[in-house]
Amino acid sequence: MADEVRQVAAIDVVSVIKCRGRVERLAVAAGEEIGARSLDRLTVTHEGIVGDRHAGFTRPADVRVPWFPRGEPIHNERHLSIVSLEDLAVIAGRLGVEKVEPEWLGANLAVSGIPDFSFIPRGTRLFFPSGAVLAVTDQNAPCRFAGAEVERNLPPGHEGLALKFSPAAKRLRGVVAYVDRPGELAMGDAIEVRVPEQWVWRG
Amino acid sequence: MADEVRQVAAIDVVSVIKCRGRVERLAVAAGEEIGARSLDRLTVTHEGIVGDRHAGFTRPADVRVPWFPRGEPIHNERHLSIVSLEDLAVIAGRLGVEKVEPEWLGANLAVSGIPDFSFIPRGTRLFFPSGAVLAVTDQNAPCRFAGAEVERNLPPGHEGLALKFSPAAKRLRGVVAYVDRPGELAMGDAIEVRVPEQWVWRG
Repeated sequence: MADEVRQVAAIDVVSVIKCRGRVERLAVAAGEEIGARSLDRLTVTHEGIVGDRHAGFTRPADVRVPWFPRGEPIHNERHLSIVSLEDLAVIAGRLGVEKVEPEWLGANLAVSGIPDFSFIPRGTRLFFPSGAVLAVTDQNAPCRFAGAEVERNLPPGHEGLALKFSPAAKRLRGVVAYVDRPGELAMGDAIEVRVPEQWVWRG
Repeated sequence: MADEVRQVAAIDVVSVIKCRGRVERLAVAAGEEIGARSLDRLTVTHEGIVGDRHAGFTRPADVRVPWFPRGEPIHNERHLSIVSLEDLAVIAGRLGVEKVEPEWLGANLAVSGIPDFSFIPRGTRLFFPSGAVLAVTDQNAPCRFAGAEVERNLPPGHEGLALKFSPAAKRLRGVVAYVDRPGELAMGDAIEVRVPEQWVWRG
């Protein structure tokens, strides 16, 4: 098999794309509840956000990675959860509510100005003025705990909304990322976005 | 901007793809030279291959990430380098040599049976019988040091091949990966491959 010179597949590669965004909200998830607490700045190290419960080089395997025994320590590629205000506005529109706040979803960072943010691909780097860099690892999936938190934060009259959240938020729930280079993130920061080469592998 | 309900982009998402491969070669890079030493099994921890110079939660920034100050500690998403025998056979054919061995390139793992292996996307998980899991982070780029090592390992009569290596090996140089779950990799292991959902973001 290795003796046979095979043709290389003609896979289309999309070039690196650069764009810009802006930091609209920062929050830390200190306790066990899903909601996060807003701050004007966050310090990130190689292990994640200082004081956030998702920090660490490893994390316990959860329902998102059903192929691992629950609780087993695995590589932590989920230091931060990031959403965009534009995507949250679409979710709010679908739910018929005035707004969905990033903190309700436990998002550590909310950005604006990056189109289709929840589809920003794996390997994308977000560069901040302090020198901090985040690397995107996956699209985030909505969960029922976030839906319950949204319902809890809305005025009365939205009973049952928790169950509608997951379908409304599918592919709009932002991305998760790890800290590539430590530094500070601050409200209003301009973010330089570098989307790496992309292609689709079909096997 | 956040007040306006925007349409969600119609981005095509390719479903999860599963396939299988096989471990054909294992090697550790212990010293400073690029070449690696073959072994029958490798132990991997959350920091990478035990005894390999690329192990660690962080690594010093190098020429591959020119946006960082050289030597600065950044997240280590390059615990292992992985190639396929099929891709190496194509490189050998292009160079007009009998073979290119994985160890010459410093590859820690050579696999077979996975088509277009060097294009296997970011986020792909490789599952091994021991329970070890590797996660793919990027396509690897050929470098002139690997070309020099290939030339050094070939019989006389291939002078100047080092310079031809990079163009011949472009997009055939395999991928880099981190250890998602610790365990052992062994010669002949069957590998279960899980390619995540894929799409192309166009900004």
